[in-house]
Amino acid sequence: MKALVFNESLQILEVPIPQPLNDEVLIRVLYSSICNTDLEIIKGYMGFNGIPGHEFVGEVITTSSRYFGKKVVGEINCPCGNCYLCLTGRPTHCESRSTLGIFKRNGVFAEYIVLPESNLHVVPDNLSEEIAVFTEPLAAAIEIFEQIHIKPSQNVFIFGAGKLGLLIAQVFRLNGCVFNVFARSESTVKKAADMGVYARLISTLSNSDKAEVCIEATGDPSGINLALAHLHPRGKLVLKTTVANCEKIDLNQIVINEFEIIGSRCGLFEPALRLLKQKLVDPQQMIAKTFNFDQIRDAFEFAAKPGTLKVLIRHY
Amino acid sequence: MKALVFNESLQILEVPIPQPLNDEVLIRVLYSSICNTDLEIIKGYMGFNGIPGHEFVGEVITTSSRYFGKKVVGEINCPCGNCYLCLTGRPTHCESRSTLGIFKRNGVFAEYIVLPESNLHVVPDNLSEEIAVFTEPLAAAIEIFEQIHIKPSQNVFIFGAGKLGLLIAQVFRLNGCVFNVFARSESTVKKAADMGVYARLISTLSNSDKAEVCIEATGDPSGINLALAHLHPRGKLVLKTTVANCEKIDLNQIVINEFEIIGSRCGLFEPALRLLKQKLVDPQQMIAKTFNFDQIRDAFEFAAKPGTLKVLIRHY
Repeated sequence: MKALVFNESLQILEVPIPQPLNDEVLIRVLYSSICNTDLEIIKGYMGFNGIPGHEFVGEVITTSSRYFGKKVVGEINCPCGNCYLCLTGRPTHCESRSTLGIFKRNGVFAEYIVLPESNLHVVPDNLSEEIAVFTEPLAAAIEIFEQIHIKPSQNVFIFGAGKLGLLIAQVFRLNGCVFNVFARSESTVKKAADMGVYARLISTLSNSDKAEVCIEATGDPSGINLALAHLHPRGKLVLKTTVANCEKIDLNQIVINEFEIIGSRCGLFEPALRLLKQKLVDPQQMIAKTFNFDQIRDAFEFAAKPGTLKVLIRHY
Repeated sequence: MKALVFNESLQILEVPIPQPLNDEVLIRVLYSSICNTDLEIIKGYMGFNGIPGHEFVGEVITTSSRYFGKKVVGEINCPCGNCYLCLTGRPTHCESRSTLGIFKRNGVFAEYIVLPESNLHVVPDNLSEEIAVFTEPLAAAIEIFEQIHIKPSQNVFIFGAGKLGLLIAQVFRLNGCVFNVFARSESTVKKAADMGVYARLISTLSNSDKAEVCIEATGDPSGINLALAHLHPRGKLVLKTTVANCEKIDLNQIVINEFEIIGSRCGLFEPALRLLKQKLVDPQQMIAKTFNFDQIRDAFEFAAKPGTLKVLIRHY
C-alpha cells in the first residue's frame, strides 16, 4: 500500500499492508486530517519515525469483526489493559500504550491501518466523512469538561483561536457561560468571526481583565504566563498546548493566588459523536482545504502556514 | 513600645503603640514564632518594610471588645469585605487586603498589635501558648484538605520535612492514607523520626516511585520538578513553597500526563484549633528553642540555620 513515512523527511513510499494482531482489525482509511501534533512530529517531537497521522474515518475490512463494512472513527491510545493505570480508570495513560501515529504505532496517512476493535466507534449515518474526522480533536476539547466543573455563571478566557481553540470555543458555547476567545492576529479574529465565534486581539486585554477559568491553546509555550496573568485567585488554568519546550514560571504567584493548573489531553469519542450528530458542534467552516492523498506532502506544507485551519486528506 | 523593625536591616526600636481603627482591637502579644516567610521577608521578599511576624498568641486589651481579656490567635489576612473576591468567598485573596507582618500591616514582633476583631479566635483553655502559636501554620497545612479530596486509600509523597512539611505530615496521618515524607539530609530524617514521622532521603527515590498526590514543601524552587517526576498521570501536586524565584517547567509533561498543580496558601483557624485541642496534632516536639523578645535578633539568626524547626519568642 501507499503510505506517508516520516524518517528525517516525509516521503510517500510503498509499504506492506499491516497485519492485524489479536484484537486488532484492518481498516481502510477514507479521510484523515492534519493536527498540530503531526506538524510537531515532523519537526522531531516524540522522536517518532514511521507513518504519522491519528485523525481519521475508515471502513472496517476484517470480515470477522462485528464492525465489518461499517464506517468508524478510532481512539488513538492502545493500552495494555492490565497495568495499575489501566486498572484505575486511566487507560489513555497506560505506561506501555502505543498511540496511533504518535508513539510506537503507525498512523493513518496510509491506505490501511490496524487498531484494536475496542478502540472503534461507529460513525452515525447522518455524519459526513469530512465532519466525522473531527471526532478526535473535538473529544480533546470536551476532555476539559471531564476534568473540571465549569459553571454556566462563570467567565472563561480561551487563549488561541487555532484549530483546537475554535473547537473548544464551540463546546463552551453549549455551557451557557460567558467566554472570550483571544487571538494574536487580526486575520485569526476575522476567521473566527466568519465561524460565528467572537474573538478579540490579545493586545486588547488590560491588566484587570480576569477570568475564573482560562484555557491555554495558543500552541506557544509563553501562553501559560499570559493566561496566569488573567486568572482570578483560585481560578483554573487548563493547559492544552503540547510543544517540546520548557517555560520559566513564577511559582510564587501560583501559591499566593492558589491557582490550579490542569493539563488536558485526549478525550472520549462518544460525547464528541453525540454533539456532532446533533450539529451542536459544526466544524464545517473549519475545513481550510481538502487534498487527495497523492498531494499529502503539499497538504503538510499548506497546513504548516500560520493561521491555517483544518486540512483534510481524501484517501480514495 | 518595643518592636522589631525591618528596614534594610533588623533592629529593635521604640515605636508608638498602634491605635485600633473601626473594627480593630488592640492585642498584647504573649508568644510569637518565626516562619520561613519571615526569613524571606528580611531578604527582601514582598518588599516589606516595618514590623514583621504573623504567628502569635495574644491577649485582647480593648475593653469594649467581646474578647476583652481573652487569649486569642488571629487570621493574618485583613480583607475589605466588599470586592468581587470577598463577595465570592475568597477573602484571603482580597485585592486590597493587608496581611499581618507581610503586606501593608505591621506584624507581631512587637509588644502590641491591632487586628480586626473578626480575625480573632479564642484559644481553648487546655492549649498552652507554646502550642497555640502553631495555629496559623497548622491552618496552612489543613488548607490542602479544603482544596482537594485526598482519599484514605491513596498514597501521598510529601517533599520537605521542615516546619511546614512536618505539620502537613501530621495532618495526613489523620487521613488514613499511606504517606511518605522525603527529606534532603540525614539529620532531618532523624529529626522527623524523633517526632514519630517516618521520613526517607530523597536520594532513595527510584524513577518508578510514584504517588497520586505529591506535596511540595521543600522551600526550594527545584522541588516542583522533583515532585512532578514522582507523580502518577492525573495525579495532583500541591505547591506550598513560596520563594521569590522562577523555575523552568516542562509544560509538555503536564499536558501529556494531565497533571493537576494546585497552589496552596493560608487556611482556616477553627479546624486547626480543633485538632490542637484534641491533641490529634501535637507540635510540641517541633519547638527548637524559645527566646525572650530581647533576644529576637539572635532568634532570627538561629532560625535561619538549615534544618532548624520552630523558634518561639516569649514576649513577657
